[in-house]
Amino acid sequence: MARDIAIIGVGMTKFGEFWERGYRSLITESGSRAIIDAGIDGKDIDAIYVGSMTPGRLIGQEHVGALVADYAGLVGVPATRVEAACSSGGLALHQAYLAIKSGLYDIVVVGGVEKMTDVATEHATVALAGAADQEWEGFHGITFPGLYAMMARRHMVDYGTTDEQISMVSVKNHANGKLNPYAQFQYDVSLQDVMNSSMVADPLRLLHCSPITDGAATVVLASGETAKKFCKKPVWIRGTALATDTLSLHERKSITKIEASVVAGGKAYQMAGVKPSDIDFAEVHDCFTIAEILAIESLGFCKIGEGGKITEDGETKIGGRIPINTSGGLKAKGHPVGATGIAQAIEATWQLRGEADKRQVKDAKIGLTQNVGGSGATCTVHIFSMEK
Amino acid sequence: MARDIAIIGVGMTKFGEFWERGYRSLITESGSRAIIDAGIDGKDIDAIYVGSMTPGRLIGQEHVGALVADYAGLVGVPATRVEAACSSGGLALHQAYLAIKSGLYDIVVVGGVEKMTDVATEHATVALAGAADQEWEGFHGITFPGLYAMMARRHMVDYGTTDEQISMVSVKNHANGKLNPYAQFQYDVSLQDVMNSSMVADPLRLLHCSPITDGAATVVLASGETAKKFCKKPVWIRGTALATDTLSLHERKSITKIEASVVAGGKAYQMAGVKPSDIDFAEVHDCFTIAEILAIESLGFCKIGEGGKITEDGETKIGGRIPINTSGGLKAKGHPVGATGIAQAIEATWQLRGEADKRQVKDAKIGLTQNVGGSGATCTVHIFSMEK
Repeated sequence: MARDIAIIGVGMTKFGEFWERGYRSLITESGSRAIIDAGIDGKDIDAIYVGSMTPGRLIGQEHVGALVADYAGLVGVPATRVEAACSSGGLALHQAYLAIKSGLYDIVVVGGVEKMTDVATEHATVALAGAADQEWEGFHGITFPGLYAMMARRHMVDYGTTDEQISMVSVKNHANGKLNPYAQFQYDVSLQDVMNSSMVADPLRLLHCSPITDGAATVVLASGETAKKFCKKPVWIRGTALATDTLSLHERKSITKIEASVVAGGKAYQMAGVKPSDIDFAEVHDCFTIAEILAIESLGFCKIGEGGKITEDGETKIGGRIPINTSGGLKAKGHPVGATGIAQAIEATWQLRGEADKRQVKDAKIGLTQNVGGSGATCTVHIFSMEK
Repeated sequence: MARDIAIIGVGMTKFGEFWERGYRSLITESGSRAIIDAGIDGKDIDAIYVGSMTPGRLIGQEHVGALVADYAGLVGVPATRVEAACSSGGLALHQAYLAIKSGLYDIVVVGGVEKMTDVATEHATVALAGAADQEWEGFHGITFPGLYAMMARRHMVDYGTTDEQISMVSVKNHANGKLNPYAQFQYDVSLQDVMNSSMVADPLRLLHCSPITDGAATVVLASGETAKKFCKKPVWIRGTALATDTLSLHERKSITKIEASVVAGGKAYQMAGVKPSDIDFAEVHDCFTIAEILAIESLGFCKIGEGGKITEDGETKIGGRIPINTSGGLKAKGHPVGATGIAQAIEATWQLRGEADKRQVKDAKIGLTQNVGGSGATCTVHIFSMEK
């Protein structure tokens, strides 16, 4: 029962702080762009999936699947919100894939969205802490900078990863973000800028942390025959996988290995019939710069413990052995949490179609996206290519 | 690519106010019961779906898919939270069905859960208002009793529905709940009790409203061959459908017809190859007693406008033409919002297996469940039978 599934259209808003705009305005903009890009009509759409982490706490609104259908002018169409913290976008993509694969739906629109600047930053930080274990972590006051700081410090102790190396992730991602007109931060930062920025949670400084961001991203998926009918450049989903880990960090055997990423990555590679060395570029979840190092290790782009070193050696730059976060990543492109997993898929689509302009990876044939929830309790991995 | 899917195990907690228990304790109890009922082992489980409306606002916890996998001892297993307000449970069931139908997963556990009593009742009411349109409804202060009160008043004006009729729904559902050991309220209320209870939002009084409830419910789904291997009495999902409507009430052509229920019901009937008169019993979404009247009209159990009359005539009682809410419904069984859609499926399972004890519907062969989000912006309908 093979039923190949492709991305046939993509669209996103610029990421940033949009004081004057609301949640529904953002998601309808990205949705409209994706629908136009796909060349479909509203009546072609069989179902909608929305990844959104915590609109209840950020804008007082749940039930956002129906909201999106309503404001997209698609009243009646089945709409589903899914949530797995910052991995909500990747999760929405996985569910939409299953929905088409089931045969019940044929063309499915998948959006991710978050409006984070309607509350004070400290309230957003507390809302985001809902991704951690409330009883064992959040209740005691720890938020995500603190959790990732512990992971970073342990990685430094175990593998000799340096302050310079975790800072170089930021320098590289800002350099990439400068080339991305959708990025929140389109400017360079120097190694000294990063290393002299304010301390947030030792060893993580301000410029090691992704920002609070408003934004939305949407892709349109279709099954094989339909994809070919509408689209000259369908981007095929070759692998899609989802895995979990303990919600709290202290329950894990290791806090420097994202086991859910190892598992989801392994499943996605197997499904796609490829190995890490076949991947031409990847968008990974750099909510903090240490997270990018953990991601590339867990996905097999280098050995465990060597993520800092290959960053320092320039292997993850555009033009390097395995370009990582050509979009600017969460660090420079921005991180509207529910939208991030979908925005990653959009960057992969643009790279594979050869539409990534100044940040284009040469001969990009196979791309991977990795989207993490919390400190790694959920991970989704997708593998895309122009060939089935 | 037929791939029949059945419920092979069910389990739920008692519904009520459990000051001494937490979210994870409730969902793991219902999950354990369902797994034991199904006779499966943890290692058989391919994926988990969790329906939960607003744990972020009620207990400060998002990311509950991973939480459930973790606390169920199923670390690593793919876990997805879905949300569509009070229809989150029905939505989880629909997504789990798609997941199995896709062929990627074979045995899927679907839970629904809400812990509502950890915050003051007024805060729970505000959190629930997140199911309405925050910008056009919630912002102006209206909560759900007010929205449903307008629907009730309009129904009275248009169709002559009476205070007595909307009160008789409560009397019937309490009579049924008295027979259900899992119900929050296991006692009778008289017509006078209902009609003399405190006014909440004219014409809706306290005993027209479902309560704030803690609880969890879980079902285990499996594909055809697997279902037959594990289970002597698989309950087949014959129809599953999801539809949406405008999020805000004032945007609709009619506020006395739940259009999403008409659409989802129509699709589910078509998928199952049955018509309303083939249904032997139904669990419907009586968050307020008027909602039960709207539900039975939208599902075709009577003409539009006659829901009050057939209630008054006793047609919806156990032993009547079409028994509605034999479990006690949301009114008497309780309404832990994310759990409700799953608990409805459990009542259907017990009825079809002939295990509903004193509230057993004679010769029950085909059952229907209808689960509504908000004032009707989402509706899921499922049809079950012992025969494929």
